[in-house]
Amino acid sequence: MTRIELARKGIVNTEMERVALAEGISPQNLASDIANGVTVITRNILHEISPLGIGRGLRTKINANIGTSKDKVSYEEEMEKLRVLVEYGADAVMDLSTGGAIRELRKTLIERSPVAVGTVPIYEAVVKTAERHGHIAKMSADELFDVIEGHAREGVDFVTVHCGVTRKAIERLKGEGRILDVVSRGGAFLLEWMIYNDRENPLYEQYDRLLEIARRYDLTLSLGDGFRPGCLADATDRSQIEELVTLGELRDLALEAGIQAIIEGPGHVPLNQVELNIKMQKEICKGAPFYVLGPLVTDIGMGYDHISAAIGGAIAGAAGADFLCYVTPAEHIRLPDIDDVREGVIASRLAAHAADIAKGIPGAIEKDSKMARYRKNLDWEGQISLSFNPEKVRKSRGAVPTTTDACSMCGEFCAIKTVERALQKKES
Amino acid sequence: MTRIELARKGIVNTEMERVALAEGISPQNLASDIANGVTVITRNILHEISPLGIGRGLRTKINANIGTSKDKVSYEEEMEKLRVLVEYGADAVMDLSTGGAIRELRKTLIERSPVAVGTVPIYEAVVKTAERHGHIAKMSADELFDVIEGHAREGVDFVTVHCGVTRKAIERLKGEGRILDVVSRGGAFLLEWMIYNDRENPLYEQYDRLLEIARRYDLTLSLGDGFRPGCLADATDRSQIEELVTLGELRDLALEAGIQAIIEGPGHVPLNQVELNIKMQKEICKGAPFYVLGPLVTDIGMGYDHISAAIGGAIAGAAGADFLCYVTPAEHIRLPDIDDVREGVIASRLAAHAADIAKGIPGAIEKDSKMARYRKNLDWEGQISLSFNPEKVRKSRGAVPTTTDACSMCGEFCAIKTVERALQKKES
Repeated sequence: MTRIELARKGIVNTEMERVALAEGISPQNLASDIANGVTVITRNILHEISPLGIGRGLRTKINANIGTSKDKVSYEEEMEKLRVLVEYGADAVMDLSTGGAIRELRKTLIERSPVAVGTVPIYEAVVKTAERHGHIAKMSADELFDVIEGHAREGVDFVTVHCGVTRKAIERLKGEGRILDVVSRGGAFLLEWMIYNDRENPLYEQYDRLLEIARRYDLTLSLGDGFRPGCLADATDRSQIEELVTLGELRDLALEAGIQAIIEGPGHVPLNQVELNIKMQKEICKGAPFYVLGPLVTDIGMGYDHISAAIGGAIAGAAGADFLCYVTPAEHIRLPDIDDVREGVIASRLAAHAADIAKGIPGAIEKDSKMARYRKNLDWEGQISLSFNPEKVRKSRGAVPTTTDACSMCGEFCAIKTVERALQKKES
Repeated sequence: MTRIELARKGIVNTEMERVALAEGISPQNLASDIANGVTVITRNILHEISPLGIGRGLRTKINANIGTSKDKVSYEEEMEKLRVLVEYGADAVMDLSTGGAIRELRKTLIERSPVAVGTVPIYEAVVKTAERHGHIAKMSADELFDVIEGHAREGVDFVTVHCGVTRKAIERLKGEGRILDVVSRGGAFLLEWMIYNDRENPLYEQYDRLLEIARRYDLTLSLGDGFRPGCLADATDRSQIEELVTLGELRDLALEAGIQAIIEGPGHVPLNQVELNIKMQKEICKGAPFYVLGPLVTDIGMGYDHISAAIGGAIAGAAGADFLCYVTPAEHIRLPDIDDVREGVIASRLAAHAADIAKGIPGAIEKDSKMARYRKNLDWEGQISLSFNPEKVRKSRGAVPTTTDACSMCGEFCAIKTVERALQKKES
């Protein structure tokens, strides 16, 4: 039985207990949310990791993308990225490799990762097709499903599948007049395949096959957004919504079949449309967990897109998004290096934490108040221990001389000390 | 006549024309907004700079703080910070120096700065008092007003004056049970002075003197928030609001007297209270320009507070805040160095830009769409030219090999190229 089927029968398994305990919520409520598809526990039954809870009332989770490209293949570097992203608190990792021995890298990653592993199987399918047949369009539907099943068999916990890239959605896209038609690679591959072959998307047409594969491993389907906007001007348009509506329908089919699904979302979105996008997804997809990429609140953030994504992600999380895909300072420039991974994870965690405070997640603001008390007591070690990157803070603080135990920003003119002195005087 | 008095008579002076032109709005509307106190043009009549427009319908402006402390005095470094903050697009600079030859540094800064210069005169007053009399409490009201007048005479364009730190507000603070009572240095000094001397705040009691000084130089008063919350748990409490209400009253008195005033705001604020804080200020202060510090959406952002502030600042700006004070990665750790200044300015500009798009400021989203078109055309030089830090982007892009003209993230598997190819195929 899948988790949804267990939960429907009111059975709370060890995984659910574990997630409920970690989140400080009741296992029964968690099971009920899983049964209703508003929360998922992501873990391939073959993969020994901490189960990843994503959904209603849970801490906002974050994912870090890594992976090779044809131009850049270093397994050591990818494994170091894994180490770093786990150290700085990512809840999941997605392997987006398209270069080198993709399968071997993925196997090692699955073996070593203590967190959930996701993939976008169509990348490997396309790379294989390009090698074998020369052109993407020559991929058969069977080849695509074989790759997906292969990933699941190896222990991948969640897969992005762009099932909403339908012929109808392509027609709507053409009528839309976007600046950047499609910026999702998976979406672009499918679109090209569909147009060249003049056929419907096999992931849509043969969605049942996907459900069957998912069932065997209790694999979580991450219903991808091939039509996510690639710039602010394209945001929240009819092709994006067309796809979202389809994904909502497909999610219901998954839920009916006992398969866990989450919905992927934008992308590039003006700040004043972020909340709208989240609320809309929650309505259209009946509360299904929402996994957003950013969103980026400006297109000109190159070099600083992690900050742009932190802004969008924090607002999205506060409005109900459940899972944030990090964006690194290298976004729109090149693949992230190790520093980029660390900075991306931290920016994303900061955003998720700010969102959790806003959402009233148990334990969230308590951390901040603890920091505030350390600050009041000028307890530097306490403050450093609660920071996102203690090493950075320690180094930064150490770089300047201090004459007092106070903050080296204000030195002797410390507001906290001044006021403490004054208020004590008054009382004495 | 002051700008407000001119504007009230319907006179549009060269400054107003210049600001209106730069902002793409009508000079008549700008003059009317100045007359109503919802917009200010900040420039000391003795200071030759670009006039700084802050307020309704204008681009969100950003300020960068620099300055020495007793522990760290380097004029060369402060001048280099000025150069960097101007290069990366700060609209104003505040000198918060408390160490070394404060006055000489300020004079050089005023002379060299092409952007508006602000100060917090009480810092210098306190440093002088500490030198002369040993304890802050021994400062006389005359000494404080003399320092303020001195700053204005030297050409300072705007001064932070914590006029709302009243005895009543202190009583409310005591009843509030905050974790961090007061984190504003100026607020803390005044509170100590008031408690030791058992007297009302001279900046409140003798507010008329402040208006007289401001009149002589058309100095903008930045009504400071001595009770801004220093942690999320303290946000939006009764002492903060007590002070805000007082500042609203004082702003009306300023407007009546023809003096430009802006209101300073928080601070540390949970994400879900940011918009509330802005709307409340706009109501209570009848649309007066709002100058916010951050706000920071978490207390645990140490080392990454520029990102925390970018989140809060973007939301604040979108909700109507007019002027953002930057926060650097060094916040809560030490005084910023040159790298911190650059990173702080860029994070703040990104936030302000995201806000401007949300507010519908003319020309804002157009920049993003231009970037999107460069992206579609894989025009790297165009993209780099629109980025916040072209040097960083160029360096980052240069670090990895590319086999194609496409983005080195995707290499040959470029979504944009794939879709272009596919859609052309369809049409042919």
